[in-house]
Amino acid sequence: MTSEFSLIERFFTRPTPSASLGVGDDAALLALSPGMELAISTDMLVAGTHFFPDTDPRKLGWKTLAVNISDLAAMGAQPRWATLALALPQVDETWLAAFSDGFFKCAGNFGIELIGGDTTRGPLNLSVTILGEVPINQALRRDAARPGDDIWVSGTLGAAALGLATLQKRVQLGEVSRSHCLRALETPQPRVALGLALRGIAHVAIDISDGLLADLGHILECSGCGAEVFFNDLPRSDAVDAVLSMELGRRCLLAGGDDYELCFTVPPDRCVEVDALSQQLQLPLTRVGRVVEHRGLKLLDVQGRPIKIEETGFDHFA
Amino acid sequence: MTSEFSLIERFFTRPTPSASLGVGDDAALLALSPGMELAISTDMLVAGTHFFPDTDPRKLGWKTLAVNISDLAAMGAQPRWATLALALPQVDETWLAAFSDGFFKCAGNFGIELIGGDTTRGPLNLSVTILGEVPINQALRRDAARPGDDIWVSGTLGAAALGLATLQKRVQLGEVSRSHCLRALETPQPRVALGLALRGIAHVAIDISDGLLADLGHILECSGCGAEVFFNDLPRSDAVDAVLSMELGRRCLLAGGDDYELCFTVPPDRCVEVDALSQQLQLPLTRVGRVVEHRGLKLLDVQGRPIKIEETGFDHFA
Repeated sequence: MTSEFSLIERFFTRPTPSASLGVGDDAALLALSPGMELAISTDMLVAGTHFFPDTDPRKLGWKTLAVNISDLAAMGAQPRWATLALALPQVDETWLAAFSDGFFKCAGNFGIELIGGDTTRGPLNLSVTILGEVPINQALRRDAARPGDDIWVSGTLGAAALGLATLQKRVQLGEVSRSHCLRALETPQPRVALGLALRGIAHVAIDISDGLLADLGHILECSGCGAEVFFNDLPRSDAVDAVLSMELGRRCLLAGGDDYELCFTVPPDRCVEVDALSQQLQLPLTRVGRVVEHRGLKLLDVQGRPIKIEETGFDHFA
Repeated sequence: MTSEFSLIERFFTRPTPSASLGVGDDAALLALSPGMELAISTDMLVAGTHFFPDTDPRKLGWKTLAVNISDLAAMGAQPRWATLALALPQVDETWLAAFSDGFFKCAGNFGIELIGGDTTRGPLNLSVTILGEVPINQALRRDAARPGDDIWVSGTLGAAALGLATLQKRVQLGEVSRSHCLRALETPQPRVALGLALRGIAHVAIDISDGLLADLGHILECSGCGAEVFFNDLPRSDAVDAVLSMELGRRCLLAGGDDYELCFTVPPDRCVEVDALSQQLQLPLTRVGRVVEHRGLKLLDVQGRPIKIEETGFDHFA
């Protein structure tokens, strides 16, 4: 018989040298480094809403942590610790072994320690709280974009949403495109190194989890300004480019969630530094538009003519 | 149409003056006070497992936060901030208004600010991460009980479990007992002031969420020692005392979860301080046994004869 405690011990207890106290007490204890403040974010993944119940548990373990890490990347914070609350319909040791394996693989990749959590019986639900450090007053918030800033995006957009569409059989892709898009969907790479490097360069940053238009929209709303975005400049992989004539492809690019790339704004006189970062991190960084004073988000074609925007981002309750 | 963002704004955004940044960015930002470390704990409540789906949402809001606060109380930490991840089957504004009302009532009572979280569609699930401060090296852990320590318990035990039994129609109680037990079950009072006051006095502390025998068992296991507990000294309210001849009553007292009282150990020469605390906090504190070198937990009757223990604590997967 597997008890809650042996389950935690077997699958979710690993050394936590950077915590004063890790898994197993009423609470974990952490000391922050001098001059740092704590960045903290919570994301909940629900079977049927965020992933298919039969998703490969190893990939799900990775993604569960990765999407949380992405939030800290978007703050320019160094992720350090996480807690995991897990509701399970039943104890399936094979599933748990694979899930925890994927989770700790991601944790190891990004130097994160699992310091606590909760396990309980219930419909499959994964709730992670991620904690990290950022020097006081240096975090990349959402409310400091300024008219004149260039808008940049990391990596490419739309592949994760296209991957979802292929799983839902709404589109058929060739083998190479399909596996590229599924990789984007299932094992996103949070842009931690980029977020850290953007401190002191970018005015604002956000991770693109709900789609470019929605997430850029949050920046604009919080900063009280508008933007012009050049449709043709939006970075996309071949797989997304190939379906761009379809309504679905356009939607993946503009409003596809789950890419976890960063969108950030930078004053134009610092674009050289962004280009250098792109080289250094071996990560495409693309200028896709600029922040303007006048509220609202305008999408422009090659000739600078406005394109009607019909896509909105992902909203769980809309 | 209620979007995820307006839902958060309407029901879950209140001022957070003690955070550098609260709800609404990729992450919240917190600065710790000098000399403090962070205590952090996560608890997940699932409909059908931890509460009936038709539970009064105002009381559920209170309890969701209270059970998390209790974990910090058991560390001797000052609770300060919380995040809430919430999966909802649908947007029910009446329910949300009442739930958030109860949640913030508890938060206000204990000086806690809600600094972030997540809302999503899914089977009703409430996951809270609570954060607090404790002076470095002063937290009340589980692993420092010593043979010779007296074992103490706050308040009374068993009423919450008896309240659950009455809701499940496993027992019938008189009106006074019933309302006392339901209050214990639905609006537990985390022992924050006691936890803070026990720093420097108690060797260990734990909150009794899974039942006295199970939670004291955790202390003993972590500390590598045993205990003798005097059955007749266990503090219980009249309601529990009245059903103690029944198997159910005994089980409520020894293994009933959800009381959220503290169990702690104190060297005998400091019992005067514990008595003074009881006066000062207007909270019964009862010596119920002592820590011994020999491993195992012995329950003793009035004559000091061992009572056979059949009850174990609550385990979601046992």
